[in-house]
Amino acid sequence: MSYFPEISKIVYEGPKSKNPLAFKHYNADEQIEGQSMKDLLRYSVAYWHTFRGTGSDPFGGATLQKPWDDGTESVANAIKRVDVAFEFVEKLGAPFYCFHDRDVAPEGATLAESNKNLDAVVARLKEKQQETGIKLLWGTANLFSHPRYMHGAATSPNADVFAYACAQVKKALEVTHELGGENYVFWGGREGYQNLYNTDMKRELDHLAKFMHLAVEHAKAIGFKGQFLFEPKPKEPTKHQYDFDVAACMNFCRAYGLTDYVKMNIETNHATLAGHTMMHELAYASMQNALGSIDANTGDLLLGWDTDQFPTDIYLTTQCMLVILEQQGLAPGGINFDAKVRRESFEPVDLFYAHIGGMDAFARGAKIAATIRKDGVLKDFVTNRYATWDAGIGNSVESGKITFADLEKYVLEGKAVAKNQSGRQELLENIINDYIQ
Amino acid sequence: MSYFPEISKIVYEGPKSKNPLAFKHYNADEQIEGQSMKDLLRYSVAYWHTFRGTGSDPFGGATLQKPWDDGTESVANAIKRVDVAFEFVEKLGAPFYCFHDRDVAPEGATLAESNKNLDAVVARLKEKQQETGIKLLWGTANLFSHPRYMHGAATSPNADVFAYACAQVKKALEVTHELGGENYVFWGGREGYQNLYNTDMKRELDHLAKFMHLAVEHAKAIGFKGQFLFEPKPKEPTKHQYDFDVAACMNFCRAYGLTDYVKMNIETNHATLAGHTMMHELAYASMQNALGSIDANTGDLLLGWDTDQFPTDIYLTTQCMLVILEQQGLAPGGINFDAKVRRESFEPVDLFYAHIGGMDAFARGAKIAATIRKDGVLKDFVTNRYATWDAGIGNSVESGKITFADLEKYVLEGKAVAKNQSGRQELLENIINDYIQ
Amino acid sequence: MSYFPEISKIVYEGPKSKNPLAFKHYNADEQIEGQSMKDLLRYSVAYWHTFRGTGSDPFGGATLQKPWDDGTESVANAIKRVDVAFEFVEKLGAPFYCFHDRDVAPEGATLAESNKNLDAVVARLKEKQQETGIKLLWGTANLFSHPRYMHGAATSPNADVFAYACAQVKKALEVTHELGGENYVFWGGREGYQNLYNTDMKRELDHLAKFMHLAVEHAKAIGFKGQFLFEPKPKEPTKHQYDFDVAACMNFCRAYGLTDYVKMNIETNHATLAGHTMMHELAYASMQNALGSIDANTGDLLLGWDTDQFPTDIYLTTQCMLVILEQQGLAPGGINFDAKVRRESFEPVDLFYAHIGGMDAFARGAKIAATIRKDGVLKDFVTNRYATWDAGIGNSVESGKITFADLEKYVLEGKAVAKNQSGRQELLENIINDYIQ
Amino acid sequence: MSYFPEISKIVYEGPKSKNPLAFKHYNADEQIEGQSMKDLLRYSVAYWHTFRGTGSDPFGGATLQKPWDDGTESVANAIKRVDVAFEFVEKLGAPFYCFHDRDVAPEGATLAESNKNLDAVVARLKEKQQETGIKLLWGTANLFSHPRYMHGAATSPNADVFAYACAQVKKALEVTHELGGENYVFWGGREGYQNLYNTDMKRELDHLAKFMHLAVEHAKAIGFKGQFLFEPKPKEPTKHQYDFDVAACMNFCRAYGLTDYVKMNIETNHATLAGHTMMHELAYASMQNALGSIDANTGDLLLGWDTDQFPTDIYLTTQCMLVILEQQGLAPGGINFDAKVRRESFEPVDLFYAHIGGMDAFARGAKIAATIRKDGVLKDFVTNRYATWDAGIGNSVESGKITFADLEKYVLEGKAVAKNQSGRQELLENIINDYIQ
Repeated sequence: MSYFPEISKIVYEGPKSKNPLAFKHYNADEQIEGQSMKDLLRYSVAYWHTFRGTGSDPFGGATLQKPWDDGTESVANAIKRVDVAFEFVEKLGAPFYCFHDRDVAPEGATLAESNKNLDAVVARLKEKQQETGIKLLWGTANLFSHPRYMHGAATSPNADVFAYACAQVKKALEVTHELGGENYVFWGGREGYQNLYNTDMKRELDHLAKFMHLAVEHAKAIGFKGQFLFEPKPKEPTKHQYDFDVAACMNFCRAYGLTDYVKMNIETNHATLAGHTMMHELAYASMQNALGSIDANTGDLLLGWDTDQFPTDIYLTTQCMLVILEQQGLAPGGINFDAKVRRESFEPVDLFYAHIGGMDAFARGAKIAATIRKDGVLKDFVTNRYATWDAGIGNSVESGKITFADLEKYVLEGKAVAKNQSGRQELLENIINDYIQ
Repeated sequence: MSYFPEISKIVYEGPKSKNPLAFKHYNADEQIEGQSMKDLLRYSVAYWHTFRGTGSDPFGGATLQKPWDDGTESVANAIKRVDVAFEFVEKLGAPFYCFHDRDVAPEGATLAESNKNLDAVVARLKEKQQETGIKLLWGTANLFSHPRYMHGAATSPNADVFAYACAQVKKALEVTHELGGENYVFWGGREGYQNLYNTDMKRELDHLAKFMHLAVEHAKAIGFKGQFLFEPKPKEPTKHQYDFDVAACMNFCRAYGLTDYVKMNIETNHATLAGHTMMHELAYASMQNALGSIDANTGDLLLGWDTDQFPTDIYLTTQCMLVILEQQGLAPGGINFDAKVRRESFEPVDLFYAHIGGMDAFARGAKIAATIRKDGVLKDFVTNRYATWDAGIGNSVESGKITFADLEKYVLEGKAVAKNQSGRQELLENIINDYIQ
Repeated sequence: MSYFPEISKIVYEGPKSKNPLAFKHYNADEQIEGQSMKDLLRYSVAYWHTFRGTGSDPFGGATLQKPWDDGTESVANAIKRVDVAFEFVEKLGAPFYCFHDRDVAPEGATLAESNKNLDAVVARLKEKQQETGIKLLWGTANLFSHPRYMHGAATSPNADVFAYACAQVKKALEVTHELGGENYVFWGGREGYQNLYNTDMKRELDHLAKFMHLAVEHAKAIGFKGQFLFEPKPKEPTKHQYDFDVAACMNFCRAYGLTDYVKMNIETNHATLAGHTMMHELAYASMQNALGSIDANTGDLLLGWDTDQFPTDIYLTTQCMLVILEQQGLAPGGINFDAKVRRESFEPVDLFYAHIGGMDAFARGAKIAATIRKDGVLKDFVTNRYATWDAGIGNSVESGKITFADLEKYVLEGKAVAKNQSGRQELLENIINDYIQ
Repeated sequence: MSYFPEISKIVYEGPKSKNPLAFKHYNADEQIEGQSMKDLLRYSVAYWHTFRGTGSDPFGGATLQKPWDDGTESVANAIKRVDVAFEFVEKLGAPFYCFHDRDVAPEGATLAESNKNLDAVVARLKEKQQETGIKLLWGTANLFSHPRYMHGAATSPNADVFAYACAQVKKALEVTHELGGENYVFWGGREGYQNLYNTDMKRELDHLAKFMHLAVEHAKAIGFKGQFLFEPKPKEPTKHQYDFDVAACMNFCRAYGLTDYVKMNIETNHATLAGHTMMHELAYASMQNALGSIDANTGDLLLGWDTDQFPTDIYLTTQCMLVILEQQGLAPGGINFDAKVRRESFEPVDLFYAHIGGMDAFARGAKIAATIRKDGVLKDFVTNRYATWDAGIGNSVESGKITFADLEKYVLEGKAVAKNQSGRQELLENIINDYIQ
């Protein structure tokens, strides 16, 4: 049976197509820098938004039509949703999906019951994966929705909540492993604080580190070789999240000896809420060998919450792909559409429009970035801009053979004569525009 | 001769005083947790704002009256300003001051000339220090005003600019040492980028680290034992500063092996521009043993630039002092008023009103924080809130004797039964209010 | 029967009290500028947050304990909540409450059924009002939660939705009238847009104006003499609300001839989300004779959404009361606590702590503002600052007897010699601090 | 003699050109909706940024190379700058320029001297206008840079400052008239407040209105028929500007009877600082028949000050042109590049790159918007979306023949059955992307 009977498989029709249900830029097998688009972009559909999102917001209830859903939290309904999801992802042509444990299966009255529910649904997920070839980009555990996690999970002041979170993650890890998941994500929904008057930040961060180390140990114990990913977000739902931005996450990982095990899963809307461009967060992580995967979406910079809109801005996707191509892709990570349709876009077809738009936008960004890179236009500019570092005093500094006294002498002798060059920001922006056509 | 003839030494008159030129809360010798206010708060006056500020802004010119200043960049005028400054600081009763090299003495046509100018003024500073007992909290170098630093100093793409910056810092360090400065600050005014298209972030950060290591080496070479301080700021003048916030600075220090040498100099307005409360930045640095000093001011949270207003909000100063008292003070750092009068407050007496307000506000915050601490009202709440970690499963986790499997067993056996407690944020806010009276 | 058996009536115990369940500043009968605190402050409890709030947020479900609530949407449960509400308000000692239609009674399958549900509950509200003397500050209609209002209510592109909204407001107005409500509020939850590509802004605003005029007509028809209030909010849930701030609302009212009928209901958190201080919005409305009522709460200026925290900042409440006292109070409006406990403050007693904190904070602000006003400290400063306008050229300008040519002559003749005075912002801030003790 | 000897006249070479000093999209004579690009876009160069900008910022001094400038404030130097400016504008091919009085000629010791200076330069401007055919889009007076205006000009608490401002504007109006200026702009640089404690907002706004009325009268007196334009900006340099956004300006104009005389000059960076998109401000002004002209630039939404960057974002320019084409252009207003090169782009050629980029971006936006309009893709969607208003109950509401009672009856009888349609935001965003290629 089909849940989207009116939708055929989305195919590439090229930029001139007028068909809103076709790709104009994403062409799975087309090569970019030696990889197919499919392998380079590794698109993933987010189970929570696309199959569990309701359109509710703090001021109103569900709006999204889900004719297949009986509205219950039963396991049977959950299993049916698996079929819906795989039909959607297959028709869309995305190679991956990802989920939280509680997206796919209902929480039970006890952990045992929750685990049983999860096992039942996972069996169906596994069947569908085998049937369709769709793979799991990453799994994770929802440690923020249940009231028990109101004060945090790994950073809860309640040790029993910490224990519960660990038990839940143990299962989520095992399930991710069973499904061949290529990564495991930590997004610390409530790992932060609402106020500092009642908070022991140091103790909470110690616990968070302990929690991650325990997860790393358990992965070893079960043979899970996937990459652990830490997802920065500055605020919301808490006033201040411990994983504020890439810098805060990296500082945490360095402080607690986690850099060998954990990379970053970076989201555009989280980047901008933290006051950074997405390109900054990607470049900053990448230069530290820590760019693992991305949650592709966009926020509205005039709004102060996580709007999780689908990314369609070509400047944004070009900038992302410039960084991603520079490190030759994201694998085993990918580009996961952690994005939701507006609550006013309530028809199932809107889910298709939305994903098509995001996939086309990144495909287009990839092509533009690859052309820019092929032409060397930015790279040559940068190389030339730093040329004084490649020889002479610059080289001596970089190779570590010099002291303040040497440098003072150099200056006092009038040798520091290299002139500054114009930064040419306006010209570079024009050039980027030339490539966007 | 006197430059502020109408102002007498500012003295403590107590909270009932109606005299706007008296302290109502700052009483230098009064004891707080075993230290005098003077030793605990270590107030410092910022040479640049208070003696070199003009009131100009991007839309208009100088407004501030400086009857003593002849308006030239001569060394004679600079030396006269030293006398003005020391009269001001002495009348105010602050024990410290601090400066950038180019605040106190004019930049010359060459580094040699600049150094000579600096030596001439430093001689006078030294005399006045000895005469008055006023000390130098910290020195630093201005590596952002001169056009040569347009693209950064230590992070300039021009290696000769790097060399120049090192030579300049060498001298600034030596001068700070000569004047008995207790700290040396790195604020990287233009160490960041305006756009990523023309920037090699990794190479620039490598250079910044090299620069700091060279400074550390030179300090050893000359016997300077003061503390190095790194000052976070997220943006302005550049679009993105590398020293974005405490997390970014700490991550940098950890990555490049600088944590043994460098602590943080944290500014309120920089904290809020980065999306953090000042209390957060202080607590976060302190728990990493990296809270070195503070630049006391405040921003306007509805404005997006560094307004550098004097701090008068009692909530803010109470929060700061809660963290500072917890680590038993800031020494060898202090509380430096990196703050400027509004350009419409153009009379010299406004400089006094402004500093009195800031000193009183921190003194009041210190007393309130000490009372809160004495009564144990927050500490007891926090201790109780984390009680489940002090024994049982919590203790096993903290002491590292446990695995995910153990924790899962614990939960499956129904042992995770500790109930969450109310966070009581509203009650705690009321309690803070009770102490503010 | 009692729903808060452990709570006695909250009474005034004075600032030295250590009882967290007593007022330290709010003393209902104490006189301030010739009015009792009760009559001046006109405190109101918000039915939606205090009795219908659940603690859910976009990342997690209900947390707040409501032992009296059976969890259903039955009318019986709704009637029981009335008893809970009145016990709470009475114990708290607030003279008013306010509500949306759907807060008090469940929406039915049809409008007729909804109206019937509402009538049943209103009967109980009326009884409890008579029994306790608690009055209705204002009523309003919820035109944002139901999916029919996804695109707006009065500004919906669907005319039938407009019709539905009008019918709903008709009933809400009638019910407000029946209960002696002293005001009626328009808060246009979804009156705005998510994007401009699909929106005819002009047509939508025309409809909004028509809607308000129809409400004004209907009020006349039924004899409702209460004040209409328009509530500004810049964004959330929509990307852009038409009632962005007081200026946008006033421009709308002027453009569509509504100024005689509509005043402003101003909320702190909405003011700051729009980039204004609360004091600005109050003063700006008041000077246009349009300050009708306030929704007292506070936001977190580092967060970009409506956190609706209880107001406890004494600077904020002092500033509010300076404006409110200047216009001799808000009646028939009042101070409504449109604020909610944090979701981690989940016990019923937290509702008491929260309201006590807010009531005390405004009472304290009122006393401080009254003292400042009695001493004339700000007023005298301002009067003196504008003295050049009270005679001479200033007076000629104000009285309209002058042209550009006259003014040019005056300047060319060298008569424009009045010197600017220092703005004294720092001194004024110190003075405010002196009054806060 | 030539000041830009290495630059030839910038010509259109089409999108494939690799010449950074050619237009790729701006083709002056090409027709768009019946107007030439030149007449539709009416590009203007801003004298202050392009010929008087220095590259200084609050943290550093001048960087921009101006080999023609002798660095003095002499009239001779000012006259030489006129020649530079006209060579630049002519080579660029922009039909307009605009200025503040103090951009073109130095302020003297007295108003008489300032006026004399201005006359001398204006004579040269007039000659160059006649020689080149370049016209004056608008003139204005700088009422913010001189210290006398520290507390505002028309809103100064000092009546003599008000008088001075009027005298200055009188001259600026006359000069604008003499040069055939097509508009006159009010941007109230310091018309706002730094704090409310010392401010009488009502009195200041009364004065501002008086000032504008006096200007309107004087325009009549001298026969100036140009359009008056009011320029919104929310903050900077003051904490709060009275001309916060279009809504605040329109409310002011309505309150003081100025709507017949004054339209809006809307700037992108000011719009976003106020929390609006540029498209919102344009559409909101246009629907009130008040969109007069635009200051074309862009801000950085992650920065909180007016960065005044050149506009290159095609989404932005497309959105602007959708509104501008809908009202058939801006004449007598235009598109003025109130934008400056980054201080690191210090060579004269960067001024060309920057303007070329902005002109191409708006030309491209114009073509895209015209194609979207020709295809009717947005208009048809919107028309259909509001179809329920064109007949039946919707029509009755719009034509004013209905009451709440009628509408309630309609709903109770079950007639309100029109279903909501999906808002299709994602599809619309994809469609916009399809047009951007």
